[in-house]
Amino acid sequence: MVRDPTATAAADPESEPLYRRLARQYSGYIAAGTLRPGDRMPSMRDFMRRHGVSLATATETYRSLEREGLVHARPRSGYFVQRGRSAQLPAVAEPTPAIPDCAQFVGVHSKVSAVIAMCQAAPQALNLGGANAAAPELYPAEALRKLATAALRHNPQLLTATGIDPGNEYFRRMVARRALDAGVQLAPDEVIVTHGGIEAVNLILRAVTRPGDTVAIESPCFSGLLQVQEALGLRALEIPTSPSTGLVVEALELALQTYDTIKAVVVMPNLHNPLGCSMPDAHKARLVELCSRSGVALIEDESYRDLADASMPLKPLKAWDTDGTVIYCVSLNKTLAPGMRLGWMNGGRWHARIGMLKSAQGRSNEEWPQVVAAQFIQSRAYDRHLQRLKHHMRLLRARAAEAIAASFPPGTRFTPPEGGVTFWLELPAAVDALRLFEIALGDGLCIMPGTIFSNSGRYDHFIRLSCGLADPDLLDRSIRRVGMLARELADDGQSACQEAR
Amino acid sequence: MVRDPTATAAADPESEPLYRRLARQYSGYIAAGTLRPGDRMPSMRDFMRRHGVSLATATETYRSLEREGLVHARPRSGYFVQRGRSAQLPAVAEPTPAIPDCAQFVGVHSKVSAVIAMCQAAPQALNLGGANAAAPELYPAEALRKLATAALRHNPQLLTATGIDPGNEYFRRMVARRALDAGVQLAPDEVIVTHGGIEAVNLILRAVTRPGDTVAIESPCFSGLLQVQEALGLRALEIPTSPSTGLVVEALELALQTYDTIKAVVVMPNLHNPLGCSMPDAHKARLVELCSRSGVALIEDESYRDLADASMPLKPLKAWDTDGTVIYCVSLNKTLAPGMRLGWMNGGRWHARIGMLKSAQGRSNEEWPQVVAAQFIQSRAYDRHLQRLKHHMRLLRARAAEAIAASFPPGTRFTPPEGGVTFWLELPAAVDALRLFEIALGDGLCIMPGTIFSNSGRYDHFIRLSCGLADPDLLDRSIRRVGMLARELADDGQSACQEAR
Repeated sequence: MVRDPTATAAADPESEPLYRRLARQYSGYIAAGTLRPGDRMPSMRDFMRRHGVSLATATETYRSLEREGLVHARPRSGYFVQRGRSAQLPAVAEPTPAIPDCAQFVGVHSKVSAVIAMCQAAPQALNLGGANAAAPELYPAEALRKLATAALRHNPQLLTATGIDPGNEYFRRMVARRALDAGVQLAPDEVIVTHGGIEAVNLILRAVTRPGDTVAIESPCFSGLLQVQEALGLRALEIPTSPSTGLVVEALELALQTYDTIKAVVVMPNLHNPLGCSMPDAHKARLVELCSRSGVALIEDESYRDLADASMPLKPLKAWDTDGTVIYCVSLNKTLAPGMRLGWMNGGRWHARIGMLKSAQGRSNEEWPQVVAAQFIQSRAYDRHLQRLKHHMRLLRARAAEAIAASFPPGTRFTPPEGGVTFWLELPAAVDALRLFEIALGDGLCIMPGTIFSNSGRYDHFIRLSCGLADPDLLDRSIRRVGMLARELADDGQSACQEAR
Repeated sequence: MVRDPTATAAADPESEPLYRRLARQYSGYIAAGTLRPGDRMPSMRDFMRRHGVSLATATETYRSLEREGLVHARPRSGYFVQRGRSAQLPAVAEPTPAIPDCAQFVGVHSKVSAVIAMCQAAPQALNLGGANAAAPELYPAEALRKLATAALRHNPQLLTATGIDPGNEYFRRMVARRALDAGVQLAPDEVIVTHGGIEAVNLILRAVTRPGDTVAIESPCFSGLLQVQEALGLRALEIPTSPSTGLVVEALELALQTYDTIKAVVVMPNLHNPLGCSMPDAHKARLVELCSRSGVALIEDESYRDLADASMPLKPLKAWDTDGTVIYCVSLNKTLAPGMRLGWMNGGRWHARIGMLKSAQGRSNEEWPQVVAAQFIQSRAYDRHLQRLKHHMRLLRARAAEAIAASFPPGTRFTPPEGGVTFWLELPAAVDALRLFEIALGDGLCIMPGTIFSNSGRYDHFIRLSCGLADPDLLDRSIRRVGMLARELADDGQSACQEAR
């Protein structure tokens, strides 16, 4: 179902030289982390025996990997995996000072819509910026198609009967069961089905705030959240957020002491978009305790957790919730299938009011995608798909990190994401992200300027790269192209500076 | 696909006496209006020849129809179709006085949600109150299933690729083409796809109002609209609405002169829910002109127009729009398939802002239902389906009208709807509609109390009956049962009155 992205480069395997095929195989191991930076490669003799190839082929394979910069030879010691240059890029700076901005009405819409309009006017551009985790090819289209077809055959009225609030019972049962694995105990009745996470956040903010209220959010945060706040006439208070440990809880505490108009906090504690980091458990526990003590709704947006590469499953904030302070929303758009627009939520203390608003705002979701998703989840095919998806994402991340390190201008910083395929890059201050966006789009490459991830203007030299392409070679080439354009902008900026002196 | 509702009564046609089958056939003609009240039935001789039956069978058929009250014999003249007793019920009273209420914040939610919660707690109850036009069996499930299956086979990424704003291009093209037939000229680019009409109304009211603003609405109007206004913190101004010609334009004009906080007017000019009437063209033209002159957004909710039984297609308000005053929203939930939750809209002058809100509120619709609907519309199967659906609805209306006239208490009034299957009944003032709703629900029958169709309390002795059952005999029995319960309540009310004296 999901294609092996390492296989996409070769149009015709028959015509590809053997050494190339082997080199690709090993570059895959390296990208996947099976072979890690600094690891010794198999000796020539081992390699020849393992693959039943001649010395000439083995030598050519290693030279090919060397040309790609993936391995290097040490005299009398053999070949070693190159230490990723990405490790040499400095991490994105921690927020400083760690006190929040002033609460202000959000006014990003014109910027966001200008950016979106430009992307839509260039439909052929390669999507390196979309909010989706990955390209459609990486999702289980065929398995879902079969389930969808069978579901319609089994119950032809799926399309003609109205859905029932708060969603299909079977689907609610399956997601409640899955939530148990994450330490969240919910009865199916405590689940409201939504059109992905964004509808949920809309309903929730409408339930817990009134126009003019203040909502604390992470800085940066994804532009959709800012748009929702703008549309609802809410003030946003951007809370400093660490690129490695997420929301700075002390900064939120200070903000809650300063502003009594804060009615809600929206957080993406696991695999944050765009930062790619997750909060440590101790921070999560303190955050939940703080919000509970302050009587503020804590809205947890879980869109990416299942794509995190942690050895142990990450725990949602909801797992620490004891009094209904945490409103928990899960989107399946990034993990199961972007085209099904499916999500669900539990509204904590505000559950009933949110359910009313869901019904008033758009009625219950269509039944049919829920039935399909429920079957996919129950059959464990979802877990197998997630394993495959995460494996491919690891490959893509390794390729992307390498390409970024190799091509972006000096002074670029990034913290490798802990899963998923979203990279948050800090460029030299001279690079205007919006300008880079425009130039790259002119070149057929769509990236996202940091400008639209905050109301503050603080990220005008940041970009978000979404690296979920099916073809890693295309990804590599495209990122290098963006890097080169960024380098040109950085150089222009520098010479402009020098001329000004 | 759509079953003949007249056929559902007989479990086994083989075992049914011939005269019964013929009687059912003729009761169908009568219900459908093929034979109209006062028409002469075929003579015995004609009947025998036409159906190749004996005199005994012909006589028994006519006697059977006579026992059902559908025909009567006149000495030496033969049999005649009974004049429908429904014609004897007085029409619902015109609104008086024809001046609007005071604008007030909507506070129906607790009532509406109590009613909905009670319905949901009785899932086995027969749905005689739902907002859906009709039972799932009356929609083209099999044709849609086939199209859906083929669409997924043809484009497997329908489920895994994200939808694109403002909706699938093919679907937008098809609905724009259809709108042309209704006198509305729109380019596909001027169409935003929505999850049915209710999402559209939400987005529109968010685009054209701010909390605290006043929105003029018809009185009565469907409860969903009141819920939306309540959820958005809007004031509702209920404009007198005639049960035969819809919104009283003079009353709106007076309201616009009185209140300068009115930002929008929401109207269902064709086959109004719950009134079942349509505005005359001259009223429509004046309404559009009035709103244009006053700079007020005129929101046209077109959910039922395609179910109207007019000899000429009814024209939407949008057909008179020259300056983008009319925001036009169409739902396909009642006409094509309730389970697909599909609708579309054009936002007139506010189109761009509404598009932004749609994206911020929930992103673009799923692609797949749009593709299925577009194919169904293009193949003209939609038009054939509508013809069949309207035919069955005529049958159902005739049965319902008959059952209402025969069973409801004296003093009941109703104006026959001009299409669809929604009946708005005014009961004697002594009958508390909420009480009737509760008692009927206890009896396994779900109707809608008028209470939830207004903020004014004016319709507490009205009910809405939705008569879209697949089985007309079941419909007949159920309505008669509700009528009997209403009669009991009316009697109780009267004796209570007398006792009080």
